[in-house]
Amino acid sequence: MIKQCIDAAANRVKADIVLRNASYVNVFTGRIEEGDIAIVGDRIVGVGKYEGKEEYDVKGLTVLPGYIDGHVHIESSQLSPEEFASLIVPRGTTTIIADPHEITNVCGMDGVDYIIRASKNIPLDVRVQLPSCVPATPFETSGAILSGKDVEEHICDDGVFGLGEFMNYPGVINADPDVIRKLEAAHRAGKIIDGHAPATSGNALNAYLCGGISTDHECISVEELDEKISKGMYVHLRHGSSTRNLVSNSKAVNAANMRRFILCTDDRHAADLKEKGHIDDALRKAVAGGLDPIWAVTIATLNGAECYSLKDKGAIAPMKIADLVVVDNLKDFNAKYVFKGGKLVAEDGKPLFDTTKRYLPSSVLNTVHVDPLKADDFRLTLKGKRARVMTILPGNVVTGCEIMDIASKDGDVDIVGTDVLKMAVVERHKHTGNIGKGLLKGYGFKGGAMGITISHDSHNIILLGDDNESMAKAANELARIGGGMVIADKKDGKVYSLTLDIAGLMSSRDADSLQRDSKALIERAYSMGVDREQEAFMSLAFLSLAVIPQLKLLDTGLFDVTKFAFTTVDAE
Amino acid sequence: MIKQCIDAAANRVKADIVLRNASYVNVFTGRIEEGDIAIVGDRIVGVGKYEGKEEYDVKGLTVLPGYIDGHVHIESSQLSPEEFASLIVPRGTTTIIADPHEITNVCGMDGVDYIIRASKNIPLDVRVQLPSCVPATPFETSGAILSGKDVEEHICDDGVFGLGEFMNYPGVINADPDVIRKLEAAHRAGKIIDGHAPATSGNALNAYLCGGISTDHECISVEELDEKISKGMYVHLRHGSSTRNLVSNSKAVNAANMRRFILCTDDRHAADLKEKGHIDDALRKAVAGGLDPIWAVTIATLNGAECYSLKDKGAIAPMKIADLVVVDNLKDFNAKYVFKGGKLVAEDGKPLFDTTKRYLPSSVLNTVHVDPLKADDFRLTLKGKRARVMTILPGNVVTGCEIMDIASKDGDVDIVGTDVLKMAVVERHKHTGNIGKGLLKGYGFKGGAMGITISHDSHNIILLGDDNESMAKAANELARIGGGMVIADKKDGKVYSLTLDIAGLMSSRDADSLQRDSKALIERAYSMGVDREQEAFMSLAFLSLAVIPQLKLLDTGLFDVTKFAFTTVDAE
Repeated sequence: MIKQCIDAAANRVKADIVLRNASYVNVFTGRIEEGDIAIVGDRIVGVGKYEGKEEYDVKGLTVLPGYIDGHVHIESSQLSPEEFASLIVPRGTTTIIADPHEITNVCGMDGVDYIIRASKNIPLDVRVQLPSCVPATPFETSGAILSGKDVEEHICDDGVFGLGEFMNYPGVINADPDVIRKLEAAHRAGKIIDGHAPATSGNALNAYLCGGISTDHECISVEELDEKISKGMYVHLRHGSSTRNLVSNSKAVNAANMRRFILCTDDRHAADLKEKGHIDDALRKAVAGGLDPIWAVTIATLNGAECYSLKDKGAIAPMKIADLVVVDNLKDFNAKYVFKGGKLVAEDGKPLFDTTKRYLPSSVLNTVHVDPLKADDFRLTLKGKRARVMTILPGNVVTGCEIMDIASKDGDVDIVGTDVLKMAVVERHKHTGNIGKGLLKGYGFKGGAMGITISHDSHNIILLGDDNESMAKAANELARIGGGMVIADKKDGKVYSLTLDIAGLMSSRDADSLQRDSKALIERAYSMGVDREQEAFMSLAFLSLAVIPQLKLLDTGLFDVTKFAFTTVDAE
Repeated sequence: MIKQCIDAAANRVKADIVLRNASYVNVFTGRIEEGDIAIVGDRIVGVGKYEGKEEYDVKGLTVLPGYIDGHVHIESSQLSPEEFASLIVPRGTTTIIADPHEITNVCGMDGVDYIIRASKNIPLDVRVQLPSCVPATPFETSGAILSGKDVEEHICDDGVFGLGEFMNYPGVINADPDVIRKLEAAHRAGKIIDGHAPATSGNALNAYLCGGISTDHECISVEELDEKISKGMYVHLRHGSSTRNLVSNSKAVNAANMRRFILCTDDRHAADLKEKGHIDDALRKAVAGGLDPIWAVTIATLNGAECYSLKDKGAIAPMKIADLVVVDNLKDFNAKYVFKGGKLVAEDGKPLFDTTKRYLPSSVLNTVHVDPLKADDFRLTLKGKRARVMTILPGNVVTGCEIMDIASKDGDVDIVGTDVLKMAVVERHKHTGNIGKGLLKGYGFKGGAMGITISHDSHNIILLGDDNESMAKAANELARIGGGMVIADKKDGKVYSLTLDIAGLMSSRDADSLQRDSKALIERAYSMGVDREQEAFMSLAFLSLAVIPQLKLLDTGLFDVTKFAFTTVDAE
């Protein structure tokens, strides 16, 4: 391989592929430079004057190194790795650091294994982190637990790149023994550990970093970001669907700290990937927001490669992997061609590769284990008239708590005619029969029930409704289809659903047809009154996330995150 | 370990050591920041408000990360690793990338092993490269050969960090099979390969870089440097004793390319280390030459750590190794304290550690294997009257060739009363009996012979003289003492010598007494007429370096580097 590259670089033989008349971003000099880019096998052999067996004239276009997404949960797209790739590779992303935290909460190491092996068949370099915090809290029932011992056993597994975002920052700062065991294991293995430490600063941040944690994507202010960089972290500028700090945080990029920034999307829905884009969209937005385009490209490429020790990525230079994006300009970043490892894999936004699901093991299918439910299972009996009701703000995963008067009738709350809905979280991993119940105000749905098997981070069934019979029907349908999204309409007595067969989180179908059916179901939810400021189903998924204030519902009951303790719906 | 660090960082227990009231260079933000630097074990746990079991008030001083010398041949100091450390650690250098190219030419893998093991006993992190080009040319007799097979066998040895500077750049560009074998081995092992490619550019440089080579320290112009950086190389700014490009090349440092520069000394004599300094002197000179002091420090620390993937070095931040230099200011860089791995190892320029040679194996001693020589062995019989004579320029390792009339008498050249000396290179590794002979003009020595067992890169005995008897005496003395430097004075009949017992290159004695005796012998050479523009002995060492033009003398004969072929002293 080296010999062939040297021979072509020295013009003794023709290169395999040459991009003639290229202008390209040189991330080492910060300049746009010119030449013919020569490729042999999966490597760039040089920029100079070259001839190739195959040639592309890219005059007038600009060639960039393939983009690196430094932190992403593929599951948030509801797509398989193959379909995810079909959306992001044509946009120019050629490497992702994937943290399969969601599927691992359902399937344990089988989930990690699935993401690793399914990703082998696609022209996208998927570096898979071992999730560090499964479950996210000890208070709920998840499908799996990854203990310190598990991390010790699996951190050096084939295909495991590092340790995923360490969300349990209090556990690190308090030096919890099982946390230390995980950190020590990753440290001994020389593996990178991603971070997640919102609003942590001062000596507490020092303590967190003594865990050997390298990155953070949760900065919400320039001050927070500046402290994290000053303490040696790489900071991801995030461009997710719900959570974004890219444009505001990119104001903090300067010549001295520039090399410490990387890009990530974290959680991005298929619709956004399809319609707006991926890292290309982050580049567009960052540049529109005032970030120097060459800095933006460097952040999206070389910096990610440096942070994650991907020594042969992130630049256009001899012996770098030939992951290349050919774009129209450094404002729009429309990708004309994408090369992955020296192969043309996308053209004009269209993937040129097969997305057949060659690896789809039974271990990630049929993951909804719930015994048949009936209407009475959803009765919510109050002792008095006052209740703790969860409130919700559009576009925010923080919830509130309001003490309200709630009527009762026949040993069940009577919410007909109010702006309050019944909530339920039905444990779906282990047939425990657990059903957590609560009340939610301000969601706007009427006339039945809706539910989903995505509910962060344990991914039990989360249901909303104003009719017990419909809630039971909805839950039973989710069990029947093996996970997904559902609406039970009381009026017509019908149940409408969309299957997410992979762990109840993702679909094995193709991106386009899934999108179409998903949109139809979402539209049905809106037509039944869901506030259009909410994401019809995905806003539900955060109502059980017990690391975000204030009131959350778990399969084990109502939880007050501010006190980190269970509470009751009864408020008197 | 992680737990103790976290506990101290979070202020639950006292740190081991705290540098109170520190101002320090933050290489991540490019600022001077303030706080108490807390250390536990060998790690920094954070900068903040801290108390320690042991405290140093460093108010008014500036704390820097320990310096990294990115490329150095310890042998050039003529000191053992222990004594070398005693000179450079008190200056603030805490990590070096050492290429034991010289000792390996004499002792083979035993030389590599010696440097690795001797360096274990000192507070200096010595990362040892496997020399890539032993011997430097196939035309001479070296003590050892490291073939592609040897590199394959040893590249993953304990203590082998990477592959040393690949000086055989024509071999890389031409894809010589044994060269490819070495490069492939390092590449497979994921090891860094250092470079050495003077004046290589364009597609030839691309070809060289397809060897997977990462660095270069030979740039002699800003243009050369800029191209090398643009092609992904890290460029060492060099501050050796003879070869320096630091100040001129540092003019090319700018905000876009800054992260691609590192510092090195390559070859630096003990006297310079003692009197001028090491990387501290490079920093002084660079800053005096106009380089921003924070950039200079970043280049000397973080950049070296990044280039060589020393992830826990090069910065003052949580979980970085506590290698710290406390200096007076960023102009003079006088080191008040040096900490290595959290231990105070030098104060006010004085080492606080033991330099006992705990590892000095017989395999690197007694390396001069020459049968007794007599005066007649040094006869140089010409066929005619015209001879090719080597000429030498002060301070330059390039030699010239002059065709001169040379008289003969009794079958030997008659150089009495001329400015020409007889030269001889006596093979000293394998009793071959090889003696290469030649003539040198303009060195200025009279009345006997002088010689040394350092002669790049095969390190045979190189002798100069105007008297055959003295030349034989000098050679025999070098054999008797096991290598070193020698003067045979014809007038008093005495032989004066200094022993370099380790491979004939370095001394196992302490730095100070060696320096004193070395200076005395050098002074004797000058008193016998050596041109004071020359380095009395070390200028000799380059007269056999057959990769530098024009005329060089090998044990196998006179060599014309411009033709890359042997030639004769006879010029008609």
